[in-house]
Amino acid sequence: MNRLASPSIALVGATGAVGRTMRSILAEREFPASAIRLIASARSAGAVVETPWGDVVVEDLATADPAGIDIALFSAGGERSREHVPRFVAAGATVIDNSSAFRMDADVPLLVAEINDAAIADHQGIIANPNCTTMTLMMAAGPLHAAAPIDRLSVASYQATGGSGRRGIDLLAEEVAALGSDVDALVGGGWSDPGNDLYARPIGFNVVPLAGSITEDGYTDEEWKLVNETRKILDAPGIRVEPTCVRVPTMVGHGIAATMFFERPMELEEASGLLSTAPGLQVWSDEKVPTPLDSAGIDDVLVGRVRQTIGEPGGISLWVVGDNLRKGAALNAVQIAELLLA
Amino acid sequence: MNRLASPSIALVGATGAVGRTMRSILAEREFPASAIRLIASARSAGAVVETPWGDVVVEDLATADPAGIDIALFSAGGERSREHVPRFVAAGATVIDNSSAFRMDADVPLLVAEINDAAIADHQGIIANPNCTTMTLMMAAGPLHAAAPIDRLSVASYQATGGSGRRGIDLLAEEVAALGSDVDALVGGGWSDPGNDLYARPIGFNVVPLAGSITEDGYTDEEWKLVNETRKILDAPGIRVEPTCVRVPTMVGHGIAATMFFERPMELEEASGLLSTAPGLQVWSDEKVPTPLDSAGIDDVLVGRVRQTIGEPGGISLWVVGDNLRKGAALNAVQIAELLLA
Repeated sequence: MNRLASPSIALVGATGAVGRTMRSILAEREFPASAIRLIASARSAGAVVETPWGDVVVEDLATADPAGIDIALFSAGGERSREHVPRFVAAGATVIDNSSAFRMDADVPLLVAEINDAAIADHQGIIANPNCTTMTLMMAAGPLHAAAPIDRLSVASYQATGGSGRRGIDLLAEEVAALGSDVDALVGGGWSDPGNDLYARPIGFNVVPLAGSITEDGYTDEEWKLVNETRKILDAPGIRVEPTCVRVPTMVGHGIAATMFFERPMELEEASGLLSTAPGLQVWSDEKVPTPLDSAGIDDVLVGRVRQTIGEPGGISLWVVGDNLRKGAALNAVQIAELLLA
Repeated sequence: MNRLASPSIALVGATGAVGRTMRSILAEREFPASAIRLIASARSAGAVVETPWGDVVVEDLATADPAGIDIALFSAGGERSREHVPRFVAAGATVIDNSSAFRMDADVPLLVAEINDAAIADHQGIIANPNCTTMTLMMAAGPLHAAAPIDRLSVASYQATGGSGRRGIDLLAEEVAALGSDVDALVGGGWSDPGNDLYARPIGFNVVPLAGSITEDGYTDEEWKLVNETRKILDAPGIRVEPTCVRVPTMVGHGIAATMFFERPMELEEASGLLSTAPGLQVWSDEKVPTPLDSAGIDDVLVGRVRQTIGEPGGISLWVVGDNLRKGAALNAVQIAELLLA
């Protein structure tokens, strides 16, 4: 692995929600970039963007020359990553990819900064940023797993519409306005479906128990990511995960209710101790339970409702919530870039 | 048990959300009441309400004489039930109580109509209507349990604000209007808390991972109800339940993500068959997953995402959602009253 003191950076997908957040996080953390290039689709190319590194003209991904880029942070979707990441790597860039394109490749580390940093040593030019829901869960599950390997895990998610990008946020605002004009119909039935092309059902004043698309065995790609990425990040291929991924009418902040059992019983006191000293994590009390709104715009992931299981002894149930745009995406990508610094 | 052909009915808490729904369900189902009395707090007493049994003047619970009432449907809160149910029973009424006051009493049947109807035979004047979230879950878990006893159960709820009555519905509408005026703050942080006295945190564009109040061991009363009422309804005191009860920004319709394991492996085909023939339940496909909005105003409970567990084989995961005012409360109470008919 090459370590760089002052790398040349490129953001690919620079004008999307995650790309914009990456830009502001690089600035907030005073990332020691020698230069920054902003790359996006042809639609955004030519726009001029103000950055701490001067005004930058957005380049078209189709024609951008990757020569001279040390680190490229991709957040442009799986299809564009599959097409363009290889040529960036061939030109000498180390790519941190936010899509699911390479996450499960054996020679691509899947890295949650502060959870499995050591995995970066094995990279061959690509480091993958995990799925936002999995990442949030890992911030709480990782420190527990390090003390007592997790054996099984039940997970139900409460995923924000912002996980679908700006379109999700706008859709929620529109549907809440449209549906909210007839509260009687919401309560007693007879509401009219505003129709949307993003989710299987309306999301305003509603919950859609299907986040992602069904792939195999009746599970969605989001649910399979929770299973497979958890196993890879924790380097524990035997963990048994039962996932349910649900979209809820929030804009930012993915929440997760999890119940986990370990290879040995874990007492509440031990779990609380591990979580309270874990980096990047805040433990909140039951007096002020952490919510998606509390997580919006902050770097730390928030954990609460930490408690001993009551059906079967020795397990831990908890609630964890994090900003899907920050730790769930942009922040973690920047933290990976920081790990690449000399 | 006395069976009656044409009983005299009283609704106690007649002007609340559940009471009003009871009234319309009695009318819809052409309940053969000989007469109906409407009883509420002093605040509502004196109002005249139109019913299929003629105009009825609302009586004050504090002074109402229960003489002559055959069946009283109480939905006036636990405190009022504890105070007034005994005098109604002493006067000869059979009471169907929607509060939690008597649910766990050994001589009070806890009845989900079409799931454990036989339990009614043991009543001593009081029959309890279960908690709305538990009731919804039982509509799907009951038919499976009847075929293969449930051993353990992980449950995460998505509970509507309407579960807190009209105040919850109004609060959600108000908070969505107040918070929705500044989408940037919802996405990036800096929103101002409108403040509310109903939930631990704001509910507009948010999720509150604490439905009810913390009682023992870090669990809320709602979570303990899921544990204890499930065991009582299914007559299976050994079922191990891991519950997380969460409030979401919907108005009506409690959703539940559940993963269950049985005393023997259950194949998907068997589970699907049992659910598709269960009364009061509709099985929806993954093309149109059932949502809280779909459940609003209808009697049937909706189940979807029925699938085999993938971590540990032999279990079933599913999503179930039902109108908390109808099957979750008023409809079940009326169904119990129907079971009392000759």
